[in-house]
Amino acid sequence: MVKAAVMTEPNLPLEIREFPEPELEPGAILLETLFSEVCGTDVHLHKGQLAGVPYPIIPGHINVGRIKRIAGESYDVDGNRLESGDVVTFMDVHETCNNCWFCLVAKATTRCPNRKVYGITYSADEGLLGGWSEEIYLKPGVKVVKLPANIPPERFIGGGCGLPTALHAVQQAGIQLGDSVVVQGSGPVGLSAAILAQLSGACQLIVVGAPQLRLDMALEMGVDAVINIEEHGSEERIELVRELTSGRGADVTIEASGNPHAVTEGMRMTRDNGRFIVVGQYSDGGDVTINPHWDINRKHLEIRGTWGIDFSHFYRSVKVMAKHGDRFHWENLVSRSYSLDQVNQALADVAALKVIKAVIKP
Amino acid sequence: MVKAAVMTEPNLPLEIREFPEPELEPGAILLETLFSEVCGTDVHLHKGQLAGVPYPIIPGHINVGRIKRIAGESYDVDGNRLESGDVVTFMDVHETCNNCWFCLVAKATTRCPNRKVYGITYSADEGLLGGWSEEIYLKPGVKVVKLPANIPPERFIGGGCGLPTALHAVQQAGIQLGDSVVVQGSGPVGLSAAILAQLSGACQLIVVGAPQLRLDMALEMGVDAVINIEEHGSEERIELVRELTSGRGADVTIEASGNPHAVTEGMRMTRDNGRFIVVGQYSDGGDVTINPHWDINRKHLEIRGTWGIDFSHFYRSVKVMAKHGDRFHWENLVSRSYSLDQVNQALADVAALKVIKAVIKP
Amino acid sequence: MVKAAVMTEPNLPLEIREFPEPELEPGAILLETLFSEVCGTDVHLHKGQLAGVPYPIIPGHINVGRIKRIAGESYDVDGNRLESGDVVTFMDVHETCNNCWFCLVAKATTRCPNRKVYGITYSADEGLLGGWSEEIYLKPGVKVVKLPANIPPERFIGGGCGLPTALHAVQQAGIQLGDSVVVQGSGPVGLSAAILAQLSGACQLIVVGAPQLRLDMALEMGVDAVINIEEHGSEERIELVRELTSGRGADVTIEASGNPHAVTEGMRMTRDNGRFIVVGQYSDGGDVTINPHWDINRKHLEIRGTWGIDFSHFYRSVKVMAKHGDRFHWENLVSRSYSLDQVNQALADVAALKVIKAVIKP
Amino acid sequence: MVKAAVMTEPNLPLEIREFPEPELEPGAILLETLFSEVCGTDVHLHKGQLAGVPYPIIPGHINVGRIKRIAGESYDVDGNRLESGDVVTFMDVHETCNNCWFCLVAKATTRCPNRKVYGITYSADEGLLGGWSEEIYLKPGVKVVKLPANIPPERFIGGGCGLPTALHAVQQAGIQLGDSVVVQGSGPVGLSAAILAQLSGACQLIVVGAPQLRLDMALEMGVDAVINIEEHGSEERIELVRELTSGRGADVTIEASGNPHAVTEGMRMTRDNGRFIVVGQYSDGGDVTINPHWDINRKHLEIRGTWGIDFSHFYRSVKVMAKHGDRFHWENLVSRSYSLDQVNQALADVAALKVIKAVIKP
Repeated sequence: MVKAAVMTEPNLPLEIREFPEPELEPGAILLETLFSEVCGTDVHLHKGQLAGVPYPIIPGHINVGRIKRIAGESYDVDGNRLESGDVVTFMDVHETCNNCWFCLVAKATTRCPNRKVYGITYSADEGLLGGWSEEIYLKPGVKVVKLPANIPPERFIGGGCGLPTALHAVQQAGIQLGDSVVVQGSGPVGLSAAILAQLSGACQLIVVGAPQLRLDMALEMGVDAVINIEEHGSEERIELVRELTSGRGADVTIEASGNPHAVTEGMRMTRDNGRFIVVGQYSDGGDVTINPHWDINRKHLEIRGTWGIDFSHFYRSVKVMAKHGDRFHWENLVSRSYSLDQVNQALADVAALKVIKAVIKP
Repeated sequence: MVKAAVMTEPNLPLEIREFPEPELEPGAILLETLFSEVCGTDVHLHKGQLAGVPYPIIPGHINVGRIKRIAGESYDVDGNRLESGDVVTFMDVHETCNNCWFCLVAKATTRCPNRKVYGITYSADEGLLGGWSEEIYLKPGVKVVKLPANIPPERFIGGGCGLPTALHAVQQAGIQLGDSVVVQGSGPVGLSAAILAQLSGACQLIVVGAPQLRLDMALEMGVDAVINIEEHGSEERIELVRELTSGRGADVTIEASGNPHAVTEGMRMTRDNGRFIVVGQYSDGGDVTINPHWDINRKHLEIRGTWGIDFSHFYRSVKVMAKHGDRFHWENLVSRSYSLDQVNQALADVAALKVIKAVIKP
Repeated sequence: MVKAAVMTEPNLPLEIREFPEPELEPGAILLETLFSEVCGTDVHLHKGQLAGVPYPIIPGHINVGRIKRIAGESYDVDGNRLESGDVVTFMDVHETCNNCWFCLVAKATTRCPNRKVYGITYSADEGLLGGWSEEIYLKPGVKVVKLPANIPPERFIGGGCGLPTALHAVQQAGIQLGDSVVVQGSGPVGLSAAILAQLSGACQLIVVGAPQLRLDMALEMGVDAVINIEEHGSEERIELVRELTSGRGADVTIEASGNPHAVTEGMRMTRDNGRFIVVGQYSDGGDVTINPHWDINRKHLEIRGTWGIDFSHFYRSVKVMAKHGDRFHWENLVSRSYSLDQVNQALADVAALKVIKAVIKP
Repeated sequence: MVKAAVMTEPNLPLEIREFPEPELEPGAILLETLFSEVCGTDVHLHKGQLAGVPYPIIPGHINVGRIKRIAGESYDVDGNRLESGDVVTFMDVHETCNNCWFCLVAKATTRCPNRKVYGITYSADEGLLGGWSEEIYLKPGVKVVKLPANIPPERFIGGGCGLPTALHAVQQAGIQLGDSVVVQGSGPVGLSAAILAQLSGACQLIVVGAPQLRLDMALEMGVDAVINIEEHGSEERIELVRELTSGRGADVTIEASGNPHAVTEGMRMTRDNGRFIVVGQYSDGGDVTINPHWDINRKHLEIRGTWGIDFSHFYRSVKVMAKHGDRFHWENLVSRSYSLDQVNQALADVAALKVIKAVIKP
């Protein structure tokens, strides 16, 4: 039997249930779970804030595991044959429809209405389709990536979903060699964005966030300056950014804070004709006020909302980690590892922002 | 002697003054003014809403004239020799510094702090450097464009500064063949944007504005649908756009209305992963409220503020008008032509929105 | 029984065979064929120049038909319900794998090695999967587009595969309002490119091709100048283009000729820092000589090869035709319509360049 | 008196001449030369291969010096006041006209026909306008950049003109996080391109060049693999690149070799739908053969020629060196430093490729 944590319905404690060892259809793969992430989305799931979730579910969308069994020949996207014992990860959004207007005409697969996502869109009745479980069943066609030998599973899960999300944001930012970049927020997305902005050519990095512990981590990761929001008010923060950037504001600002007021503030931290990326407004935090004349039009500002990721961001994240993992230790973002029996504690700690990142080790 | 209308200081009636016929330094050109535009900027100048204006000034920044005298050999940017009798126009922003950070590093010359602009940054004491005058003195280096034979001066001035402003906005919009486009606003910028969006490949054009007279003009110009803001409230307008666009919203929305609330509305008229251009917020109309989650982040929206024009937009406008002037009659945007003696009336009519476009014919 | 033309193997005359009326699996659609295109690809198929073709095949990849039967509810990509009697077309490349490196990481689906294409990758033993047939079987998931009421089937097939191919090329060209554009070639792709370049904002269009009949057609379509390659040698053609473009060369050149020497010539017809699109080298016409210093590096030239189309190009073509079909009569590109019994004649005429476009009307 | 090396006419040895200490016009600056580069352009100048050079000239276009005198207040582009004793560099192309079609419409200032360049377009009769001199006269408006304290002058001159040239090329390459990049050539441009590609997000770097000494230097700079052209023929090199890139070829290839045959080879080292930058064909090395079908069209390849630099590339280079100079020691590219008396030896060594980079220390 296989043990898994089941979210039976919103706002109730999760239960540990046992499932039979699954049989594999052709092309399917069974993973022994090594790590599964606990992220803000799981808190939203637990609070019942996402529509259309087929409770009961097994949460856990970003995962790393070891192949236990495999039905037939399978290859990863680079053409490497997958074999028992391989340590792999896989894209949580395992299917977009490739048939709707957003997939085909807009080529914006993150807006495909038919996405299928491990840990979110599947009922526990449909199988082991989430990572808070001893085993994960990979349906045929799930996009598997073999973990390079120099990426320990702890490091991969430390990057978690924050890393590819940040990669998508940084890609949108179009950073040029020599740019100055502000990152608003020092959570997993913000810290990964600060790393990736440097790796994309930014020559001045300013992180605006809190608490000091996270800002110290940012400084260790090579950022040039930090601004603690517990010590400086909004106007002062904008002024500090301007002082650090020859009075102009940053070439690029990346909002990864989750606070809606950071959007107005970020516009004002960015230089005229600069670029502002909004990636942290994952849930509805309410309305804010802007001045269209000063903040957008006269400023000649470019603003880009960034939603979700596609497989390319996931794949590129693995490449980046394989190249730069010894320089940027993503495993340090993991504050604590929890057993399956501790999932409720893990969720509570993430909800209370007690940890940068929590992971489940079944 | 040369007669010119002088704005001596804000909020006073303009006076007609006489100036001596100027002598030309080498490379300078003297124009006999054919038409000069009266635009919203002139109303702002008259109300004293722009900083650093060296009153008394001769207003009139977009102009068309006939070369009366020329000191030495001069050529336009295409290498055509300029000669007495030629009908020409010239770029009002005749100088950017080519030496500051915005000119050199950002390559955003519209944000150069050292721009010199005919009709705005020159005192009347410095010479005939504005178009509300019988003659205009073109300093050496002013960027002159010879008007093609098939552009009557009336048509050119009908395009006025709205046409290159709209061209800049449409260029920012990155319209693709087959796109649906909403234009918010049916003034000179909006109507030119509606024309240029069609000329850039848009296959569905919706203009949101008022009064009906202007919307009728838009329909004559080939737009597919109009929405009268006097007949439909904001929510209803958003709904109408969605109905016209398979429920998704427009691929591209161009805000050219001047009303700050149009910015929030425009975001909601645009489809997920679409593009929204803000060009109409030329002056500070106050703050507005947006929802960063729904309006930017989840929507994966791209927003681009567009400020001013550079010479390329001006030059390309002339090319467009030479090619398509017989199809889109910009001269029809001119509601009325005023003599120099009527400049105060012209300003009052523009301020009161009594005319689409007013022009001075000295 | 259903009659279809079958290409049994390369270089043999096609045969008319009878097939049983097919049964429909759920989601499938049966079309009564109205028109099917005969294009250069079919000549290549007949000469055995494409690898991996599962002869015997039913050719005919671009088609328009009337829905005869439909198994269950089906919708087009815009959400319109499809019904018996509807006139529709469909994307010949009905499937890309959405699982390989090119689909997922490069997002270059035209380079997906697993494409499934009507009229090319299916054996006649697998069903009515090509258009040279009285009926066409649309598998579930084939991307269907309902033809707007104002596009007669004759006009759609006149655009054929040349129109979306040209649209892809023009999209790559990034034409700006006011640009000058040279199109090399006056076949179906070249003529559609000349139309679409104008619809994308080009203000000067020069077509280089032959014979005069086609160039006259280009002039009727609004191009500003033509250069007949039967009357002017290569050096002279380059010189003529420069004369027409203030001595600089064109802002954008689109090669749609099929002659490899046009590639070198096209580089030289383009201005410094311009853009050159290569779309006409569909098959290997041999090597050519270029000078990397003068033709690429010093010229600061951008060159873009353009291969195939994806659904967005197909979809956008229909939008363009619906908007502009009354201005640009693509049906005039059809030189002759052939019955099923005349397919061998049609192929021979296309191979001999006797026709601009040949279509089969079963 | 000031000593300077003068190239009196092509192919003659340079002479040391004495010039009077210059007087400064308002806004001018006098530098004491610290280092001046000897680069391939100087060899071309000496061979008389550039048109329109006003011999006698003082060569030396990339320079670093200490401010000796300054006439009035001057500021760098970031607004820092310049003062005596400051160590500065300046853009060799100190003037583009901001008035021609290429400056204004194409916005391609590297193609401005009116560029004024220190060390190239000025006669020695016009003053100390080249760097092979004890002092350099900076005309008013020359774009000066203050060297940050953490950039030793040796390191700056080690980057020389190769660094901003490579920066321009890498900017054109549009590298994304995770990309594989091939650099062809291991001279100053190639090695800087290999550094900058890594700093732009490339995760796999392959340098193709010779001799082994330079390739070892590339490996020390973090590149993942090198291919020695003295050990492998062209076909074999292409095959090696493919093996290193999952059989596909590189996402991006940057040609910085100077050998025209590298252009054909580079196309074939690049994956389908990849990007190929041509920056190394600075002079006419003759024609080469390509296959337009396989190398461009079917490959869906994008090729970008890159000519010269503008101030933004120069400015960004300084930012990059200030941030990453301790990681990538550009000073190691300087093989040897020569006194003014040794300029003829320096030129001969550069012409004979005996050194990676030679510098003059007057």
